[in-house]
Amino acid sequence: MKHLLAVDWGTSSLRGAWLDTQGNVLEERSSARGIQSVAPGGFAAVFDEHFGQWAGTPDTLCLISGMAGSQQGWMQAPYCACPASFDDVARQVRWIEPRHIAIAPGLRCEIDGTPDVMRGEEVQVFGALQLLGLKEGVLVLPGTHSKWVRVQSGVIETFATFMTGEFYALLRQYSILARSLPATDGESDGAAFDEGVAKALGGQGLLHTAFSVRTLALFERMPIALRASYLSGLVIGEELRCQPLEPDGPVVVIGNELLNDRYARAFAQRNVDVLRVGPEATWRGLWALARTLEQ
Amino acid sequence: MKHLLAVDWGTSSLRGAWLDTQGNVLEERSSARGIQSVAPGGFAAVFDEHFGQWAGTPDTLCLISGMAGSQQGWMQAPYCACPASFDDVARQVRWIEPRHIAIAPGLRCEIDGTPDVMRGEEVQVFGALQLLGLKEGVLVLPGTHSKWVRVQSGVIETFATFMTGEFYALLRQYSILARSLPATDGESDGAAFDEGVAKALGGQGLLHTAFSVRTLALFERMPIALRASYLSGLVIGEELRCQPLEPDGPVVVIGNELLNDRYARAFAQRNVDVLRVGPEATWRGLWALARTLEQ
Repeated sequence: MKHLLAVDWGTSSLRGAWLDTQGNVLEERSSARGIQSVAPGGFAAVFDEHFGQWAGTPDTLCLISGMAGSQQGWMQAPYCACPASFDDVARQVRWIEPRHIAIAPGLRCEIDGTPDVMRGEEVQVFGALQLLGLKEGVLVLPGTHSKWVRVQSGVIETFATFMTGEFYALLRQYSILARSLPATDGESDGAAFDEGVAKALGGQGLLHTAFSVRTLALFERMPIALRASYLSGLVIGEELRCQPLEPDGPVVVIGNELLNDRYARAFAQRNVDVLRVGPEATWRGLWALARTLEQ
Repeated sequence: MKHLLAVDWGTSSLRGAWLDTQGNVLEERSSARGIQSVAPGGFAAVFDEHFGQWAGTPDTLCLISGMAGSQQGWMQAPYCACPASFDDVARQVRWIEPRHIAIAPGLRCEIDGTPDVMRGEEVQVFGALQLLGLKEGVLVLPGTHSKWVRVQSGVIETFATFMTGEFYALLRQYSILARSLPATDGESDGAAFDEGVAKALGGQGLLHTAFSVRTLALFERMPIALRASYLSGLVIGEELRCQPLEPDGPVVVIGNELLNDRYARAFAQRNVDVLRVGPEATWRGLWALARTLEQ
């Protein structure tokens, strides 16, 4: 058994964890050096700068997931096609430096002739399933591009991307609604968020409901300090609105604490309970994948 | 009977027409001097600069609609509440210069506790109804903020705003999709537009379907020259998706030729025929309102 340097290298952030031979996280590091900040050919240097000390420790395996495996990343690890089991993903791991540094593939699926993709979230899904002792369910990974993942018998059958976080940012920053919102989001307001979710679930669609941020401001029906939370509720509520949700299975939400809270509140309005998992899903998923590389 | 100087003064554009005593348009002028380009107190000067020659002709009435009647405009003309008839709107016209320059009010309505507003579109609606000899129907005014207006017995019962044009511009310009799109829209492609509409009507919602612009590019499934038309279809299709449409009544689309064509194509996928009206709806509506001010 080896130590593991587990790395989640995304578009806008770089996170790493140092794990012992039992999978326990000894230390974590993160920075804003996402792949979009790294010039072609510069990945090895950025990796060494952040993690050289851990990577240089004898008997250490380094495993990376996320956008670092894309065309614009360190080394392309082609997408694994759905339905995809944990073993399918493990078989497509690529070595950057044989027996020392490896990179996990992303997943692709196809629904009604349209492809969808993810990179990194599949590792979190397998990690969360292990942590929770589950083999099926709907898993939601909120973020700039939220992913909804459907798993049966431990196999990722299909998934779908929702540009929820990005729509929020676009509306927040560049749309006419920006004039009705405070300069910074400030403290999150649960009641205003819930009101936005309820409005979204009402069913007229975000193209329409988003405009209510402006009209509620125009007629002074909602204080400015509450409007960012309300808009967040509108956008997240819209994501939930179009989803078929079976009442029997649990929904697992994998995100940071703020997002997990918001999604749990939103799901409550659809009478769905959620199980929450945090960033530990990534480390657990990478640790499980690393074990298969040692065999 | 007087001559009419009819003016549509919006957020980003200023258009005027010179009409004879029978309502015939003799000449038109337009510029980019929308209200957002006019400093407070500067409206009279901009008006004179563009239309002084016509406004100074003896026996001429000047009637303005649009955002010039808002808080940020020339003079505030408070919103008229729905349900609103043509006469209700006429009664709330405000004089800027007695018996010479007047400004039409906008409309407001309330659905499920949320207000909605428009300014200028109500004049186009009454104008289009007169031109078509209709007293009821659903009227759609595509644009940055599309309006869906429901009319019964000549009365505007209710309406709803959709931020369709603005969402398109946000996604086109500032989102991750911008990387998958050409620098300029280029020629519109009907088949790609239709494909976008069909995808949107499929029902997963724009937060999801928008991401297909990126994945179709990633797997080289759609040439770059077609993607802007496809995205336009996704956004306009999303606007249509959430609307209940009665099969019996006609839908009237009031916009420029390009938008009228696109909406007619999109409605065709919902088996709805449309009647098209162009910018003449504004002049006809203002002319009809002006007649009531002379009495």
